[in-house]
Amino acid sequence: MNLLLPKYSDIVDAHERIREYIHRTPVMTSKSINSIFKSELYFKCENFQKVGAFKFRGATNAILSLSENKMKNGVGTHSSGNHAAAVCMAAGLHDIPAYIVMPHTAPAIKIKAVKGYGGKITFCEPTLESRETVMQKILDETGAVFIPPFNDFGIISGQGTAAKELIEETGSLDIVMAPVGGGGLVSGTAIAAKGISPGTKVIAVEPANADDAYRSFHAGRIFPSVNPKTIADGLLTSLGPLTFAVIMKNVDDIVTVSESSIINAMRIIWERMKIIVEPSGAVPLAALVEEKVDFQGKRIGIILSGGNVDLDKLPFSRT
Amino acid sequence: MNLLLPKYSDIVDAHERIREYIHRTPVMTSKSINSIFKSELYFKCENFQKVGAFKFRGATNAILSLSENKMKNGVGTHSSGNHAAAVCMAAGLHDIPAYIVMPHTAPAIKIKAVKGYGGKITFCEPTLESRETVMQKILDETGAVFIPPFNDFGIISGQGTAAKELIEETGSLDIVMAPVGGGGLVSGTAIAAKGISPGTKVIAVEPANADDAYRSFHAGRIFPSVNPKTIADGLLTSLGPLTFAVIMKNVDDIVTVSESSIINAMRIIWERMKIIVEPSGAVPLAALVEEKVDFQGKRIGIILSGGNVDLDKLPFSRT
Repeated sequence: MNLLLPKYSDIVDAHERIREYIHRTPVMTSKSINSIFKSELYFKCENFQKVGAFKFRGATNAILSLSENKMKNGVGTHSSGNHAAAVCMAAGLHDIPAYIVMPHTAPAIKIKAVKGYGGKITFCEPTLESRETVMQKILDETGAVFIPPFNDFGIISGQGTAAKELIEETGSLDIVMAPVGGGGLVSGTAIAAKGISPGTKVIAVEPANADDAYRSFHAGRIFPSVNPKTIADGLLTSLGPLTFAVIMKNVDDIVTVSESSIINAMRIIWERMKIIVEPSGAVPLAALVEEKVDFQGKRIGIILSGGNVDLDKLPFSRT
Repeated sequence: MNLLLPKYSDIVDAHERIREYIHRTPVMTSKSINSIFKSELYFKCENFQKVGAFKFRGATNAILSLSENKMKNGVGTHSSGNHAAAVCMAAGLHDIPAYIVMPHTAPAIKIKAVKGYGGKITFCEPTLESRETVMQKILDETGAVFIPPFNDFGIISGQGTAAKELIEETGSLDIVMAPVGGGGLVSGTAIAAKGISPGTKVIAVEPANADDAYRSFHAGRIFPSVNPKTIADGLLTSLGPLTFAVIMKNVDDIVTVSESSIINAMRIIWERMKIIVEPSGAVPLAALVEEKVDFQGKRIGIILSGGNVDLDKLPFSRT
């Protein structure tokens, strides 16, 4: 199978396309975190992106890449997380409907968020088969266009704009790190980083409890995610053929981290930087906590993927 | 008693003095919070200030205002909160010792913080009398200079630099709001706001459960804080003669808010802005939650005073 992979120029094009709709999020640094890890860390704060996550970049790029005729009947996706919220908000920019298929078991807080962004929700059974069947039925009836969550040329190109902005601001970096779930973010990140400075090492980080990308990368073929159980709920999905191909070509290493290191890294970011990142966003720093990466003295960029957490269910101990 | 009150020019001088040592913190806005309150809110993020609170401005200004000969034996204060951390860090800039008197009942996390900033701690009994006696003994023995937490010309002038930066960035505002405890922050804020634009209304907000400033302001004489019990643990102290005089001259109103509104406002800031503010920092927004201020359609500046919270003791419900 010969897949057309996004190139750095596609990320540049995506950036031009979405620039006026997205937030150019800040790059934050923390002296105290730098001193803990004896390195220079640059955090790209996608928790401050619209809908609270980088997902808005990809969704906006995918939708804006459609012709007016194609987008006129709306867009749809099946997701209960940040991608659904991103598709709804990006659709709202063009006053087109966003059809969201969600399992009826989705947490009330996520249903509320999607409704808040104007999504038209249809509930399904909590199986992939039901999701896909219900989604297809809606697409057939409405003529809406499906916007995939990660395994898509336009999505990957959009997600890569975060790393592009990061490196434009920091200059050359030794290492760039991102979490990996379906692989959309790290694919875009890797293409951007290698496009701007080929010598930059790109490292993806994954929860050990959802280590399908780690195993796929090291085996050279896609393993599906089986029964993942991690607090990093944005990283449950398996790679797709496109993200796998991009990762095999552009990512230097994938490492895994434990649940306790993720919580530890999250606490470091919350306490030292006074910003809220979701567990998935803390996963790259967890690799430094576990010393899984040779980081001392290095200039390292980290994509903080998002900041959507349920404040009623925080992982910190209560005394 | 004729007290010499700081003027706007004193805040300008303080700003020149401390500018290279402090963070120029960002002013953040949130479309979703603006739409909740139908107004334009500008949040001055002192949670991102060094030591995580505005207190670093005042402490730095007070210490830098000392002659080299006066500061050479170090500085001291009795406090277990942000002011102690601020004095330690500001003293560290000049390699002078910081003597901190703390009750032996202070939470371990606060003791750790002060130690982390290099403070030399002496423990005392948890009474004001013991604090003052122990402090005086240390000052006598060492020749260190006492740095008061709020009722001080240099401290007030330093705290006012936050509002100065805010208004420099936003331009003219209809209202500026700050929390009030001992009154250092709101005194500096009011002098800065009135100095830059006399038409700006300055409103101080206080927890109803620690309403001594509210009662003092409306009665025209200082009432001490009696048995305050509020989650806003930075606002437990009473006004001093200097802050009271500044407030009577420059503050337009003081309003009070309930504990549940403070938690509600804190949740709004955490969820919508993805930043961590301490309960005291959420107190001004709580006055909008309670509609205690005529805010609709107004341009309002809010000083988010700090972001130091114990993540193990958050006030959100756990399900």
